Amino acid sequence: MSPESTARSIDLNSDVGESFGAYRIGADADLIRHVTSVNVACGYHAGDPAVMRETVRLARESGAAVGAHPGFPDLVGFGRRELRASPREVEDMVVYQVGALAAIAHAEGVPLAHVKAHGALYNMAARDRALADAIAAAVKSVDSSLVLFGLPGSELIRAGEAAGLPVAAEGFADREYQPDGSLTPRSKPGAVIHDAAAVVRRAIGMIAGGRVTAIDGSELSFPVDTLCVHGDTPGAAELVRQLREGLESQGISVRPIGRRAVRA
Amino acid sequence: MSPESTARSIDLNSDVGESFGAYRIGADADLIRHVTSVNVACGYHAGDPAVMRETVRLARESGAAVGAHPGFPDLVGFGRRELRASPREVEDMVVYQVGALAAIAHAEGVPLAHVKAHGALYNMAARDRALADAIAAAVKSVDSSLVLFGLPGSELIRAGEAAGLPVAAEGFADREYQPDGSLTPRSKPGAVIHDAAAVVRRAIGMIAGGRVTAIDGSELSFPVDTLCVHGDTPGAAELVRQLREGLESQGISVRPIGRRAVRA
Amino acid sequence: MSPESTARSIDLNSDVGESFGAYRIGADADLIRHVTSVNVACGYHAGDPAVMRETVRLARESGAAVGAHPGFPDLVGFGRRELRASPREVEDMVVYQVGALAAIAHAEGVPLAHVKAHGALYNMAARDRALADAIAAAVKSVDSSLVLFGLPGSELIRAGEAAGLPVAAEGFADREYQPDGSLTPRSKPGAVIHDAAAVVRRAIGMIAGGRVTAIDGSELSFPVDTLCVHGDTPGAAELVRQLREGLESQGISVRPIGRRAVRA
Amino acid sequence: MSPESTARSIDLNSDVGESFGAYRIGADADLIRHVTSVNVACGYHAGDPAVMRETVRLARESGAAVGAHPGFPDLVGFGRRELRASPREVEDMVVYQVGALAAIAHAEGVPLAHVKAHGALYNMAARDRALADAIAAAVKSVDSSLVLFGLPGSELIRAGEAAGLPVAAEGFADREYQPDGSLTPRSKPGAVIHDAAAVVRRAIGMIAGGRVTAIDGSELSFPVDTLCVHGDTPGAAELVRQLREGLESQGISVRPIGRRAVRA
Repeated sequence: MSPESTARSIDLNSDVGESFGAYRIGADADLIRHVTSVNVACGYHAGDPAVMRETVRLARESGAAVGAHPGFPDLVGFGRRELRASPREVEDMVVYQVGALAAIAHAEGVPLAHVKAHGALYNMAARDRALADAIAAAVKSVDSSLVLFGLPGSELIRAGEAAGLPVAAEGFADREYQPDGSLTPRSKPGAVIHDAAAVVRRAIGMIAGGRVTAIDGSELSFPVDTLCVHGDTPGAAELVRQLREGLESQGISVRPIGRRAVRA
Repeated sequence: MSPESTARSIDLNSDVGESFGAYRIGADADLIRHVTSVNVACGYHAGDPAVMRETVRLARESGAAVGAHPGFPDLVGFGRRELRASPREVEDMVVYQVGALAAIAHAEGVPLAHVKAHGALYNMAARDRALADAIAAAVKSVDSSLVLFGLPGSELIRAGEAAGLPVAAEGFADREYQPDGSLTPRSKPGAVIHDAAAVVRRAIGMIAGGRVTAIDGSELSFPVDTLCVHGDTPGAAELVRQLREGLESQGISVRPIGRRAVRA
Repeated sequence: MSPESTARSIDLNSDVGESFGAYRIGADADLIRHVTSVNVACGYHAGDPAVMRETVRLARESGAAVGAHPGFPDLVGFGRRELRASPREVEDMVVYQVGALAAIAHAEGVPLAHVKAHGALYNMAARDRALADAIAAAVKSVDSSLVLFGLPGSELIRAGEAAGLPVAAEGFADREYQPDGSLTPRSKPGAVIHDAAAVVRRAIGMIAGGRVTAIDGSELSFPVDTLCVHGDTPGAAELVRQLREGLESQGISVRPIGRRAVRA
Repeated sequence: MSPESTARSIDLNSDVGESFGAYRIGADADLIRHVTSVNVACGYHAGDPAVMRETVRLARESGAAVGAHPGFPDLVGFGRRELRASPREVEDMVVYQVGALAAIAHAEGVPLAHVKAHGALYNMAARDRALADAIAAAVKSVDSSLVLFGLPGSELIRAGEAAGLPVAAEGFADREYQPDGSLTPRSKPGAVIHDAAAVVRRAIGMIAGGRVTAIDGSELSFPVDTLCVHGDTPGAAELVRQLREGLESQGISVRPIGRRAVRA
């Protein structure tokens, strides 16, 4: 048995608060009840102050840990398009967004627990150390106890560790991986896995086994501290329910990583 | 001698950090050295994260108190156009903006001292109690020690007092007033006073005498705790220098109201 | 029988193309098949270039006349909040938006047929002649054969007539009216009528009878050339189907007003 | 003497209309009098409807040809940051922007003459044929007589030719070039040449000699139809005056390429 297989607990996180004005997206009210951490959009790629506040309220009612989900200032592209911003620009925009959410959460009596970059920013920072350092510096300057999420083995995780931040390695059970551990881009066919049983199987493989199968069939060592569950798919809440059952049947408990259990 | 004439100190504030991206506006570096408090735009009507950070640095170097200057989300209108947002929308957008600046200031080791609403938001809240209450609630939920700026006798001052916030009555030495104490709108001829000597004379009248002459010639009782100096006019820095000399010659000291002296 | 009751044809229009980026709103594909004119959002209050183009294609396939639906630059407020823009600003922003849509429609081989202002802009221009004149001037400067939509008896209709534009008086079968013929604001309880049978009944009353009952029970003379059907409600397509059946049973044909039949 | 040296006329173009709301940038009123073509920002990276209209008026008064200057939707980055938009997104956003300006120009009685992509969009399309084709398709769908500007030998020029558009090869006299003919990025030291005499010398070398010296000292064959003069530098108008004198002393006339002379 590999050392990675000893995980006895896992955090389930979801990207929420991505509605905007009159536009609704996701099924936050349903989903938030099933996860342990939520990543709240901060108004750049999605979300607005009213949506942020309502989302924090929902998380508080469900006991989910609240984190910030900063992205590029690209509402029409939903933060999924790469933007060649400088590390300095990225640092400042992350401080801005995390600070805005921190104030809204504070107004609702909720502390921030973690930060997870969104979309293209997350993926660029996984491989670009300068951007990763910028994000880590931003998070540290707001609150050095915030947990920084990133792909296992990514530059973002390394930057967080170098900055002295608590970090959490994140798996995506409904996404295919490249052989190098990066996410297969959404633009590629098959990048998103829609079969619920397959998603649950992959999740349990990551959490209990510390491994995942890449898109080319190779096996990756892939220890995770938190698992992302997407809420913008039909049946998301049901999927999370199945996942929790599957994990609990293996003696793995589901609990937030931020503000409680932080990866050493 | 009237009770208002006993002021022995005054805060000089200025709206700064209103540049945006490649666009420069104002003469912040010059001006910040001459005032005691600065109101930093927060990205909605003006400003961006990089400008906000640079502005906070300038203020720190000069020892000026740093406050937030939240406005309507109307960059093309510079926040000067009335927008019929609901009190709830206003509350949330103020928390968002103040929180964003607070984080940036914190990253630079600077505490926030006060909040001054910008442009149309400031003027609407001067007469609309529901909006004024929304702003006061927003400020209080971020930090109840922040000083709320407003026109003397305005709903904004009353809302701040009702919320238990420290408040500061603000005068504009380069603007004409209506007989009811509201600002003459910028769209009206003569609303902005460009003659430096007249500006200095009016400032000293407000501060030392607690009075100002309205646009119709009537005399208003007008005690002020802080005086706004505009930086987007040529010669602004020189004007502030003259003003400080004039005040000091009357034994009135110039010092920040926030984080040090708060109106009882 | 009153003179207004002689209408033998009616245009059915709907506000469409209000999705934005990843955000979907409305049921355009269903709805467009049932109406004769569509009002396409132009990127200020809703819509983006890709959505605009897709919407024009859907309209072309269904044979619906395509019009522009310009609004205030307020995406988060969906153009429903009053913004105190000057007539000059309104004129320029309407030219900009109509021109952008005209080019996209041209790229799809579709001519523009009409212009209908959106939300707060529509309602402000119903009572403010300077804004109404600004909109009429904008439309005329793009193409003087475009039909300008407005509330019956509104300043917008008067401005269009004064500018020599063809105009179309518009009714809203699912909205309550004030005694003065203006729309009851959405913020008021009961402003939107959800009962399908009532909507159909009101529509037939406006079209065949030239009358509508205001919210206080008074009867208004209300001749209409075009009737707005909302697509953002469940069952919208079914409602339109019932409405067309009801109209046809009274010998009233449904056909576009723009590019074909223009009110004298 | 090389065949490229036979150019007896040149177009001088400048990027203008980049002010936004209360923000002023450039010295348009001065500069427009000295060039033969202007590229007007369209509201995405800079410009707003009021600025666009005022800029068209200035161009009309000076007799300069008016073209569109579409860019990425990145106001805070001034369109200078690469954004990984898809070719389809680029095509639609270019149609939108060109159409918006075309309507504003039409309202002022001015026809559009050309299109020049801005900043990062221009540079990405110089080397990415799919983006170049998207821009060419957009321009063609608006008006197939519009002249498409691009770097000599770039994919943008090739795409324009393939689409059957008239094209114009553009030189930048105040920018250094890489050995492959692309612009040295602004982020590199020395990328922008500030010495007026050097700028004039390089301009005349390109126009009269069809050659330019790259940053590594190599000589590039560089025939140009139009030369870009930047207006955001002090002394821009004076520089253009010197340039025109230098050209005229060599018998080279300065005149617009669009709507009059189009490269075969």
